[in-house]
Amino acid sequence: MANSEQMANAIRALAMDAVQQANSGHPGAPMGMADMAVALWGRHLRHNPLDPHWADRDRFVLSNGHASMLLYAVLHLTGYELPIQELKNFRQLHSKTAGHPEVDVTPGVETTTGPLGQGLTNAVGMALAEKLLAAEFNRAGHTVVDHHTYVMLGDGCLMEGISHEAVALAGAWKLGKLIALYDDNGISIDGQVAPWFIDNTPKRFEACGWNVMGPIDGNNADAVDKAIAKARAPNGKPTLIVCKTRIGQGSPNRANTAKAHGEPLGAEEIALTRAAIGWPYAPFEVPAEVYADWNAKEAGAQAQAEWNQRFAAYRAAFPELAAEFERRMAGDLPKHFAQTAVDAVVDAHTKGETVASRKASQLALEAFTAKLPEMLGGSADLTGSNLTNTQSTAPLRMDAKGAVVKSEDGHIGRHINYGVREFGMAAVMNGIALHGGFIPYGGTFLTFSDYSRNAIRMAALMKRRVIHVFTHDSIGLGEDGPTHQSIEHAASLRLIPNLDVWRPADTAETTVAWGVALSNRNKPTALLLSRQNLPYAPKRDLGNISRGAYVLSEPADVGLKKKAQAVIIATGSEVQLALKAQRLLAAKKIAVRVVSMPSTTTFDSEDVKYKKAVLPTGVPRIAVEMGVTSGWWKYGCAAVVGIDTFGESAPAPVLFKHFGFTEENVAATVLAALKRK
Amino acid sequence: MANSEQMANAIRALAMDAVQQANSGHPGAPMGMADMAVALWGRHLRHNPLDPHWADRDRFVLSNGHASMLLYAVLHLTGYELPIQELKNFRQLHSKTAGHPEVDVTPGVETTTGPLGQGLTNAVGMALAEKLLAAEFNRAGHTVVDHHTYVMLGDGCLMEGISHEAVALAGAWKLGKLIALYDDNGISIDGQVAPWFIDNTPKRFEACGWNVMGPIDGNNADAVDKAIAKARAPNGKPTLIVCKTRIGQGSPNRANTAKAHGEPLGAEEIALTRAAIGWPYAPFEVPAEVYADWNAKEAGAQAQAEWNQRFAAYRAAFPELAAEFERRMAGDLPKHFAQTAVDAVVDAHTKGETVASRKASQLALEAFTAKLPEMLGGSADLTGSNLTNTQSTAPLRMDAKGAVVKSEDGHIGRHINYGVREFGMAAVMNGIALHGGFIPYGGTFLTFSDYSRNAIRMAALMKRRVIHVFTHDSIGLGEDGPTHQSIEHAASLRLIPNLDVWRPADTAETTVAWGVALSNRNKPTALLLSRQNLPYAPKRDLGNISRGAYVLSEPADVGLKKKAQAVIIATGSEVQLALKAQRLLAAKKIAVRVVSMPSTTTFDSEDVKYKKAVLPTGVPRIAVEMGVTSGWWKYGCAAVVGIDTFGESAPAPVLFKHFGFTEENVAATVLAALKRK
Repeated sequence: MANSEQMANAIRALAMDAVQQANSGHPGAPMGMADMAVALWGRHLRHNPLDPHWADRDRFVLSNGHASMLLYAVLHLTGYELPIQELKNFRQLHSKTAGHPEVDVTPGVETTTGPLGQGLTNAVGMALAEKLLAAEFNRAGHTVVDHHTYVMLGDGCLMEGISHEAVALAGAWKLGKLIALYDDNGISIDGQVAPWFIDNTPKRFEACGWNVMGPIDGNNADAVDKAIAKARAPNGKPTLIVCKTRIGQGSPNRANTAKAHGEPLGAEEIALTRAAIGWPYAPFEVPAEVYADWNAKEAGAQAQAEWNQRFAAYRAAFPELAAEFERRMAGDLPKHFAQTAVDAVVDAHTKGETVASRKASQLALEAFTAKLPEMLGGSADLTGSNLTNTQSTAPLRMDAKGAVVKSEDGHIGRHINYGVREFGMAAVMNGIALHGGFIPYGGTFLTFSDYSRNAIRMAALMKRRVIHVFTHDSIGLGEDGPTHQSIEHAASLRLIPNLDVWRPADTAETTVAWGVALSNRNKPTALLLSRQNLPYAPKRDLGNISRGAYVLSEPADVGLKKKAQAVIIATGSEVQLALKAQRLLAAKKIAVRVVSMPSTTTFDSEDVKYKKAVLPTGVPRIAVEMGVTSGWWKYGCAAVVGIDTFGESAPAPVLFKHFGFTEENVAATVLAALKRK
Repeated sequence: MANSEQMANAIRALAMDAVQQANSGHPGAPMGMADMAVALWGRHLRHNPLDPHWADRDRFVLSNGHASMLLYAVLHLTGYELPIQELKNFRQLHSKTAGHPEVDVTPGVETTTGPLGQGLTNAVGMALAEKLLAAEFNRAGHTVVDHHTYVMLGDGCLMEGISHEAVALAGAWKLGKLIALYDDNGISIDGQVAPWFIDNTPKRFEACGWNVMGPIDGNNADAVDKAIAKARAPNGKPTLIVCKTRIGQGSPNRANTAKAHGEPLGAEEIALTRAAIGWPYAPFEVPAEVYADWNAKEAGAQAQAEWNQRFAAYRAAFPELAAEFERRMAGDLPKHFAQTAVDAVVDAHTKGETVASRKASQLALEAFTAKLPEMLGGSADLTGSNLTNTQSTAPLRMDAKGAVVKSEDGHIGRHINYGVREFGMAAVMNGIALHGGFIPYGGTFLTFSDYSRNAIRMAALMKRRVIHVFTHDSIGLGEDGPTHQSIEHAASLRLIPNLDVWRPADTAETTVAWGVALSNRNKPTALLLSRQNLPYAPKRDLGNISRGAYVLSEPADVGLKKKAQAVIIATGSEVQLALKAQRLLAAKKIAVRVVSMPSTTTFDSEDVKYKKAVLPTGVPRIAVEMGVTSGWWKYGCAAVVGIDTFGESAPAPVLFKHFGFTEENVAATVLAALKRK
């Protein structure tokens, strides 16, 4: 019989010892939540420490990521590849025990957390992915997708606005297999939360369609165990279990104080704590019987073996489905993908349509979604504006009992109405990508990327394939005015490491951008798309678009038989302007090359030779983009036609003139640069 | 007796006519909310159309800003300086009727709205400002601050996460004079909201300490009138009135459809609507009797005259308080401010302390908060980390009845525990600044500026003095790791137009930055501050710091009698590194100038002469900053020592070495640049 008290104390001791050794970290939350962890990880969580990637494992998210030592302790104790030496190296360079949990760094960590509220939202995405995969792949008598998503969270997560979006979406989607354990310790960094946190949290969750349990004694593993067992019973609603705990539980002088939150207890208090909780062992020493009580390797292997057997039966009955499931969970694109992508680009090129790039995106999506069932789209209440819906992607709906509604031929809806919840959408998409089985994409206006910015950053940090469709990408949206007009957003998104940003000029470029985004296995992509129509730009060849920048037009294309005296670099809607300016200048016998640069981030990673071929040295470069000029100087530009102020409310053509986005001004800027040379 | 129906129809007609004329805009919400506007603007709102800046006017916020024509219509009808010609020019360049309401553009518009959820949060800030000013300035028998804050909002605002932060704060602060009218029309852009918006909104607001009324018939002005009257009765809680309405009310074929939301009704449907509602007048024609019913000029003048009388009595009894109130509402700094600022900088310089710049900020704050009672600080649950609290700023607290708790000598708390609500804090601060009477500042970690980013942008767009204290500004925060380490944030904030960004290097620079921020009457400021200690950098003079960049050290300062061969530009914590590299290079007889550039945004607006004096031409420039390199090339740098990847979790000194932030690497980079030259 396991000794729950000592199991919990093992977490407490490891947490306080590791934080002390690192002289940095958060002991209070792991100590307070230790009994919750005993109940969940010791009695419920279905996982296999020796195969952290088992497709049907339960997912666990520690939304209050600063409690990382709780997670590292249970991963170590249950048998993951996380030896005690790693705990001793807590928060050291290249250890597997970073300050906050990081996916792909530590085996068993499902998502990177720390920025509060997002872990909960990732969990909502994971639970949605499970529900949709189950609806899509399970067959009568063959349940191959069937796992829970558990999330632990604190007051901080619940104060963050994004928690409202997450809670509302989980309720609307009736995520019955999502179970949240709330570490209700009444303390945040600033102290007892009462003066600034008066929410009736149970009532708030009930208002959003959740099943709520408690408050229960969160420092009693049996009580938590019982609540989890009850929450696991099917009821068609997500469940919140309110666990009253004491931060720093076990520490005689720090428990229930804000001081327990974010600093080491100190040698003296650690000694007092050891005595108080009855843990006479040396730092980082865990007795064999406690290891034995925690060990989950055997049970995990058995659970997975049982599933393997079930999956074998499924494979026998539905070989194609089984193969498809494995492909999807592996994140591999279908074999036909390369051809599909080429066909779509050639088709766009052949048609040469004049459409807005948001429409070009929809055209590309028609081609891709018809052939990639893993594509799961959506929009933050702007479907008709973002054009993320297609013929193949019916709206996702749940029936009254919470089951996923299917079409007559058995397909699930693959377009999500996220509501006006940009940040929630982005963090849910991260959760979907982390779960596996889908490639999520979602739309809003580019300016509102501000709302979701940190979740975009998290996708980049976690190296996950999430595709953001940002339409209405400049003053070209016109009358909605400066609150809606992106000025700094393209430049600002390009600054996020490992985020691919595309601002395509026409249908072919947009289709290439989608192809690259889908192939970007280890990074998110932001597609910046116009509201207004853009003529097709005739191309010398299609092969170099995917390199992020290419020579679109040479002096010869406008009847000049000499080498380019200047290069105009343009992106998106401004490529047309560049071409017109090129023609204006040609009339004055000035030879100009036009470079279309739909993706600076992609071009930046090209080899030097290609870069030089596109942007020859010794010739002035002039960039044209309807946004801040700051980012263009790194390309050695002599001048930039841009906007460094906010926009205005007026029809787009009026604004283009007002802000100097005319072929005459671009041509004049080139001439001035040539004179200065 | 006013004809409420025709008053409402005037709004409907003006909204549909203006949208039709502009061929752009949102007729549905104004038409649906017209009766709510009749009740509020026609029967309750205390305002004077001829003096939109009257200090004690009720504040009104249209949080669903796309319904701008509702606001323009009532401003026009009640008698503001907004002639019918402006309504005919709806959404045209430089009209007073922008696509979304913009403060300072249209008389009577209190805040710029459009990005959903923020208007509600601005309103919370306004109501808080009113409550605090009342507590500070009112005296027995002299009530000079006593007005309501009204906000209208839609489903979209309520789906946004920030609404949770706003609602929770309003509840915690017991803002009894905040009245929110919810336009509950059940429709958003994607259609009937039921599948993705299942919130029980009344229950949700009750859970956060609000008084909730309704649902009532929002298309019945009398019903709304009664609810507002009831809400105005003192009850110590903010009130939500749920008004069931029909979007596009009056339009036979568009009412209650998503199509009414964001496009003109079309000539035919407008004609049908005119007939249906009994409005036989030409476009933009309003009959005199309807104008008469709406006219609020006389009542407004009378209300203000009554207040003027009260204020005169107040001035007679408390002349200093009255003068102070007027100064505060005008946003003027105290006369002693310039001296206070100079003294603080000289003091910092004289002491030359080695402290973290977050601590330097607290030292500066001690000086300023002691003398500027308008400074109203706070932190998003990181007070002890952001160091935004001072001796003069006790925590803001409300008693059980909702009254502001005062110290024994009568002072209100001036440090707000915002809880873990970064976006909410930023938008509340915008509301406080818009209301007037305070200069708000608030702290969080720099990385979490991502959460509040759009509210920072809105402050910049609205030209409001809001000060963001962003600490833990780089990998220098160490072990918390990449989720918490800012990489792209300094560069990215610098891209927002009209936002001043400072990253000071020591106590003197930090104090200057605070002085500039407080003086920046028409713009917000972001102060980026270190977690780690920074030695004081000896200065040749203090006068140029405020210009954003200055020569900190010349070759002569390190014993070299020749002109600089290279310039190292550094900001914040990297200034020390630059000075050390300068010394290393001096040992090799390489003469280097070190330029400290705490504010690129300020320096960018300097005159060419000063810029050239600081950054001489013909000498290679090398920038050093622990962040993305992208923004530095505009200064013509030959090289940049920066980080273009995410950070790592480890002690700061280890990270500095790992990422190449060593004096050796900076020196080597300078040498390489000199060789290439």
